[in-house]
Amino acid sequence: MAESWVNSAQRVGRDLHLDLRLDLSAPGGRRAALTRALREAVREGRLAPGTRLPPYRSLAADLGLARNTVADAYAELVAEGWLTARQGAGTQVAERARARRGPQPRAPRALPVTPLHNLRPGRPDAASFPRADWVAAVRRSVTAAPNAAFGPGDPRGREELRRALADYLARARGVRTDPERILVCSGVGPALRLLYGEGVLRGRLAVEGYGLPFHRELLGRTGVRTDPIGVDEHGARTAELSGLPRARAVLLTPAHQFPTGGALHPERRAAAVDWARRTGGVILEDDYDGEFRHDRQPVGALQGLDPDRVVYLGSVSKSLSPAVRLGWLVLPEELVDPVLAAKGRWEAYAGALDQLALADFLDSGGYDRHIRRMRQRYRRRRDQLVELLAERAPHVTVTGVAAGLHAVLQLPAGTAADAVAVARAAGIGLDELAAYRHPQASWPAGDGLVVGYAAPPDHAYPAALAALVEVLAAQPT
Amino acid sequence: MAESWVNSAQRVGRDLHLDLRLDLSAPGGRRAALTRALREAVREGRLAPGTRLPPYRSLAADLGLARNTVADAYAELVAEGWLTARQGAGTQVAERARARRGPQPRAPRALPVTPLHNLRPGRPDAASFPRADWVAAVRRSVTAAPNAAFGPGDPRGREELRRALADYLARARGVRTDPERILVCSGVGPALRLLYGEGVLRGRLAVEGYGLPFHRELLGRTGVRTDPIGVDEHGARTAELSGLPRARAVLLTPAHQFPTGGALHPERRAAAVDWARRTGGVILEDDYDGEFRHDRQPVGALQGLDPDRVVYLGSVSKSLSPAVRLGWLVLPEELVDPVLAAKGRWEAYAGALDQLALADFLDSGGYDRHIRRMRQRYRRRRDQLVELLAERAPHVTVTGVAAGLHAVLQLPAGTAADAVAVARAAGIGLDELAAYRHPQASWPAGDGLVVGYAAPPDHAYPAALAALVEVLAAQPT
Repeated sequence: MAESWVNSAQRVGRDLHLDLRLDLSAPGGRRAALTRALREAVREGRLAPGTRLPPYRSLAADLGLARNTVADAYAELVAEGWLTARQGAGTQVAERARARRGPQPRAPRALPVTPLHNLRPGRPDAASFPRADWVAAVRRSVTAAPNAAFGPGDPRGREELRRALADYLARARGVRTDPERILVCSGVGPALRLLYGEGVLRGRLAVEGYGLPFHRELLGRTGVRTDPIGVDEHGARTAELSGLPRARAVLLTPAHQFPTGGALHPERRAAAVDWARRTGGVILEDDYDGEFRHDRQPVGALQGLDPDRVVYLGSVSKSLSPAVRLGWLVLPEELVDPVLAAKGRWEAYAGALDQLALADFLDSGGYDRHIRRMRQRYRRRRDQLVELLAERAPHVTVTGVAAGLHAVLQLPAGTAADAVAVARAAGIGLDELAAYRHPQASWPAGDGLVVGYAAPPDHAYPAALAALVEVLAAQPT
Repeated sequence: MAESWVNSAQRVGRDLHLDLRLDLSAPGGRRAALTRALREAVREGRLAPGTRLPPYRSLAADLGLARNTVADAYAELVAEGWLTARQGAGTQVAERARARRGPQPRAPRALPVTPLHNLRPGRPDAASFPRADWVAAVRRSVTAAPNAAFGPGDPRGREELRRALADYLARARGVRTDPERILVCSGVGPALRLLYGEGVLRGRLAVEGYGLPFHRELLGRTGVRTDPIGVDEHGARTAELSGLPRARAVLLTPAHQFPTGGALHPERRAAAVDWARRTGGVILEDDYDGEFRHDRQPVGALQGLDPDRVVYLGSVSKSLSPAVRLGWLVLPEELVDPVLAAKGRWEAYAGALDQLALADFLDSGGYDRHIRRMRQRYRRRRDQLVELLAERAPHVTVTGVAAGLHAVLQLPAGTAADAVAVARAAGIGLDELAAYRHPQASWPAGDGLVVGYAAPPDHAYPAALAALVEVLAAQPT
């Protein structure tokens, strides 16, 4: 008996010794290291269920540890259920701690593959994130914040950010609001989920016949039915709203229809507002890239025409980075309380420290500088695209206004699907226009490609562009 | 006619002149300033619908601006719908732009009032947020991050953070996992919403008979039915799970039952795991304050007993700050893909830059240092509470293990509601234990108070404690 204890102690001791040497530098000291080592031995089956452990004084002597250290480790493992301690029976490995095969390390999952030439729409140039300016904004804002900023978050968002946004959106986008009607969230998708998933808005939603499948799917999961309206070079045909008597709201991209690229015509802007006033409907204005007009001053937000009928939605996803999960809703008065009620007592998603940093970034002019820099860059890229196509693939037309982070290329009838297949085979990531068509749209999909010119870093764009144009120049005309 | 144009021009010119003086320093230059000023004049009714504007050359001369500047501003406002331009009729204020009363600035909403003495549970000391260390972690991690970190986010979370969490949770909490089974989210509430709101888990959920009303409400909104099981000084009575044949999962707080404060007894830990293995059930382990054990080494996570049956949930809300919206799910293999599918292609909530900073904070040892510092502080506060009560209000018993950010005070039968009322009148924010009782629980609520000792800053805690003890000392015994 004594012999087997000694053996056991020595075996345990040797194993432990190895582990302890590995782990003594880890936080928690000797007791934690011993606990871990014993736990691992049980887990891995080196100490089988039912095995009696040496009395702690023996193990302590064996390992050169204090008795209390060993006693504490045993007690810890009894509390966790690995060991059992019974009067007269000493300490044993618990029967229930039978060695189950631990999870095998699994191979890392692949993310959606980033293509060699990334011309997918909707992504800003990640290489241009203003790292130093952002860090400076974090430093200033975290240093200056009141203690309460580190407590539970106001579901409206930090006041600093709502004030900065009210100023910025009025100045840059013609939005009429005040900080009390702005709600911070973590993006336009989450904003739509908040509005429809929590029952703030109900009933059918008219949407543009071309639009983000992601938004349609997200809305579909909340149970809302979407009805498409037509889209042409002047944006959505908002006169069609009158033919949708069950629509309670409409989701529009007035500054730059996504993805077809038209700016909503003034008469159509007015028609949308008239419809909303007449029917009590709500306009959801997704101003996803309104800051990036390349040929003229950006058209102001539709929201300015009637702040009581328009929910204005924006985010930093295109203007700064989708890694900063911040967006905003500018709400009509009557929706402020319902949306707040849906959000709950405290903010569950949008980080307060990012909010403080963005407020500083806006107020300090860093955001404006970044937008100007990126606007010039994207404009140059779009110009290069237009020029190279005119020269090498004149049968391809660039449609839509000169704006944003993407362009739609119109191809000869019947050639778009082939062009996308050939382009993808050449390592070019881009989308067929048809992928954005609402499945219930009554018109056929046009032959078009949606080309994002923003995603590649500057040094990679010329090669991506050349690869694309080479594919298109070789297509049948 | 010419006369009225001049008048009009002069009136407009004067108004504009004022606005231009105010705004010329703003971004966008003269054109933007003129556009804003004209837009405001229309909005505010100073320029009524139907008013004809002066030809742009007149206004340009009047204001000392280039003709193109005025022409561009007019075109902009036509595009926005404020003005109309018709051949032969010049430029007019649009009929539809009739002055609607703009939204009146609304009074800022009050947040839930912070009491004079904040002894609410579940909040860490916001004044102790490690500002300098956090800023340093942001600086290092944003500087070192690859460009892709500023693109769309991996829905699993940043690999840097998942690796750091796998190490930390194994070391500090005995969690058995690898980075591929960890999913980053923005808190435990959002994790529950992800699991139940998106249909990953279905069926009835057993919960502890005392627990967070917030979680019950959140779960209720996703449509899940919760069934209470009993709770005593050894935590949840997990043997009762066998009496709930329809339960498919159980939500537990094994390290420190919330709020009653027991640590789940080893036999009950085993019973929970046995139940899950026998029925194919899932254990949701909410390890909300597992790092803060004051009297001994924290008991390791239940997850370590069976990583295939336990979903381990944690966040930085208690350990660091609820302002940093980061949490995690450690998932059984079979749930990884369903949860990822529910999350979608890209991360919509958790900011990547916070994730990078937390990864750095964990890897650099800053997190461990912060936990140690806070553990000492909270331990001291709990000791002071226990001592002062023993001295001044010996009829009050502090129950539960010495852990976490709160304690439960057991009062003489029938006195808790009164005590809470008196305390609140004295400016003390705290909760009655009864508020945490599941509405379907079969047992009566105990007479208890839930006292959070973490929220006040260090300098304010003695006064809060004294105020509380004064109330309790004066209660009937």
